[in-house]
Amino acid sequence: MDVPLICYDCGNTATLAVGARCDCGEPYWVATDPKGFAWPESGERSLWRYRDLLPDADPTGLAAGAGGTPLVRTPRLDDDIGARVHAKVEGSNPTGTFKDRGSAVGVAAAADAGYETVGTVSHGNMARSMAAHAASAGLDCLVLVPADAPAERLSLLARHDPTILRVEGDYGRLYDESLRVGRERGIAFVNSDTPLRVAGQKTTALEIAESFAPSVPDAVVLPVSSGGHGSAVWKAFQELREAGLATELPRLYFVQTAACGPIAEAWERGDRTATPVDGGETVAYSIANADPPSGNRVLAAARATGGGVIAVDDDAILDARRALSTDAGLFVESASATALAGAHRLAERGAFEGDDDVVLIATGTGFTERDVDAPAVDAATVELGALDDAVSERMD
Amino acid sequence: MDVPLICYDCGNTATLAVGARCDCGEPYWVATDPKGFAWPESGERSLWRYRDLLPDADPTGLAAGAGGTPLVRTPRLDDDIGARVHAKVEGSNPTGTFKDRGSAVGVAAAADAGYETVGTVSHGNMARSMAAHAASAGLDCLVLVPADAPAERLSLLARHDPTILRVEGDYGRLYDESLRVGRERGIAFVNSDTPLRVAGQKTTALEIAESFAPSVPDAVVLPVSSGGHGSAVWKAFQELREAGLATELPRLYFVQTAACGPIAEAWERGDRTATPVDGGETVAYSIANADPPSGNRVLAAARATGGGVIAVDDDAILDARRALSTDAGLFVESASATALAGAHRLAERGAFEGDDDVVLIATGTGFTERDVDAPAVDAATVELGALDDAVSERMD
Ligand SMILES: [Zn+2]
Ligand SMILES: [Zn+2]
Repeated sequence: MDVPLICYDCGNTATLAVGARCDCGEPYWVATDPKGFAWPESGERSLWRYRDLLPDADPTGLAAGAGGTPLVRTPRLDDDIGARVHAKVEGSNPTGTFKDRGSAVGVAAAADAGYETVGTVSHGNMARSMAAHAASAGLDCLVLVPADAPAERLSLLARHDPTILRVEGDYGRLYDESLRVGRERGIAFVNSDTPLRVAGQKTTALEIAESFAPSVPDAVVLPVSSGGHGSAVWKAFQELREAGLATELPRLYFVQTAACGPIAEAWERGDRTATPVDGGETVAYSIANADPPSGNRVLAAARATGGGVIAVDDDAILDARRALSTDAGLFVESASATALAGAHRLAERGAFEGDDDVVLIATGTGFTERDVDAPAVDAATVELGALDDAVSERMD
Repeated sequence: MDVPLICYDCGNTATLAVGARCDCGEPYWVATDPKGFAWPESGERSLWRYRDLLPDADPTGLAAGAGGTPLVRTPRLDDDIGARVHAKVEGSNPTGTFKDRGSAVGVAAAADAGYETVGTVSHGNMARSMAAHAASAGLDCLVLVPADAPAERLSLLARHDPTILRVEGDYGRLYDESLRVGRERGIAFVNSDTPLRVAGQKTTALEIAESFAPSVPDAVVLPVSSGGHGSAVWKAFQELREAGLATELPRLYFVQTAACGPIAEAWERGDRTATPVDGGETVAYSIANADPPSGNRVLAAARATGGGVIAVDDDAILDARRALSTDAGLFVESASATALAGAHRLAERGAFEGDDDVVLIATGTGFTERDVDAPAVDAATVELGALDDAVSERMD
């Protein structure tokens, strides 16, 4: 695969064959030439609408259905946040999370380059997404999971029939080892912050930006785990600035779970480098990355845009998840609810003005966690003949 | 609400205030004037793209995010069906099913008309959809469910905090009674085949048609329950023909579950009228409607388009559901998988030619049924140090 790369930090360039990381230790972005890019006239609704800013690939099947998710106003959340709140509904992707954007681009590019097998290191949404996209494209898929990954979570993944291997040992090292094994054995590993995935995940921000064009939102708030998605959002707005389509960048705010928040802790300390933590249990397990490979890149994004990185605890996360269901009609994953919980906390700190447009990225559907904090059902039983009275009593 | 109505069968006209059904006993459609309708130039991605063919309404919040779902090619299904197969991924709607289209239009129209409460009769996807849309719009929502509705299913619904009433008595009568109670108490009931819902659900077909424009697909295959969605698809293609955008209509094939298939049974008999059955248990419970209010309208649609109505059994449904996951990357509800199971059966009967474009409407996400037919997880455990060998052994 002959995809040009550039290091966000030291500016080194390379091609994808060389590997996913720069000699300086930082991750590469896919290099693009955004000058002359204009908002497309085409009726294309998927993320391939932005193919001029994406690696060359010819999407088929599910890959052609990724992205194009709704951005909805959530007016009933405005008062609490003290701004105009919008939600980007990433649960509308084919497998229910934003991960489909990176998988679509990664799998399509791998298929085009002649790979017959793709792989990933994940036991959650990313693994499911990769397995589904591989199934659609007729590629084999290898998923490496931690030895203790709960069988219940793997069961959803197994629906798409990938090869699953449980691996004992350090999860951070497994991430790097998978890239090496992939290079040596001709398996295209598309991990959480690898260049092709991050390229695909830029499109979340491109869609948000196009919805606000010619303006840009004042702030974007999103959960952060490995930092891949966060760095993608930053890259997208940089490209739009280079193309002359955004005069200023929105403030990018990244939210972690307090139980496992190495990037937020580094931000609090004023560090430019995230260091690994001993993560604890959290309801937002999907973003509990104790050793985030793109942590430094996210810190750079927060600095460069005047944003920040914060952490929220499980109570705040569950409160936010309930508020999204009852006041916005959005049932999201706990990890996604960190965006609203984080916006609450930022609002308390005075981060927003009343006329700010604040976009929360709701990264994934709540269906994968239907048993978490399930509400009791309060429903009286009435005879059909007594319906009138029963309705009057309750609804008048 | 001053929405013009027309009876598909006898041609009677009315306005919505009069009620949902014609004096002849058949359901009304919202009357439209499609002459002069052209495919929109706008960049609008949601179903409101087709607002010239929809009741007047000013959508906010979640309503603005309904529709605009992917239509994807599923080439790995072609051989079994003997045609070019496409899937309309309705699970990408905000609450995971096509029901959001009807809820979006129904709730937006009700809010515009000053209603403060909306309602529905459902204990599944439609109820969840209505409750979510009402939550987003800040309306109260009343959901009437059968007395024996499983608490587990209601728990997902309760996330959006509607008022739930369990009603003892005949479910078919409850459907009609709810409309009366709604009229008398100022609650906008949007049931499965009521005119506003059916109007919104036309947009599934409008999106499919626009993807194929200026051609049309040869066949559309979809699950059928009350018949509301099926009749909407038929109406949409009729409107496009009237607008000069479709010279011929696709053959419309409707699929029921064999355990509860009153419309398919009527079709087999050559009847123009569906009669109630005693439905049995089925994995496709979402479409097990023993007394479908728009059954006759669906029979008319099948006749008028040269299509048909068939039934498939649970084994075929589960096989199709697995094939959609493993060969198309689509994890769908069992009721949705009837579309593929039905297409298989139709193919055996010679319904398709090799170059036919056949669109399966995958009506909803599989997440609501993650425990149904869950696969065993087959995953070996290896040491990180032995990763190379383990990968070679399995992937070479
Ligand atoms: Zn570097
Ligand atoms: Zn009539």
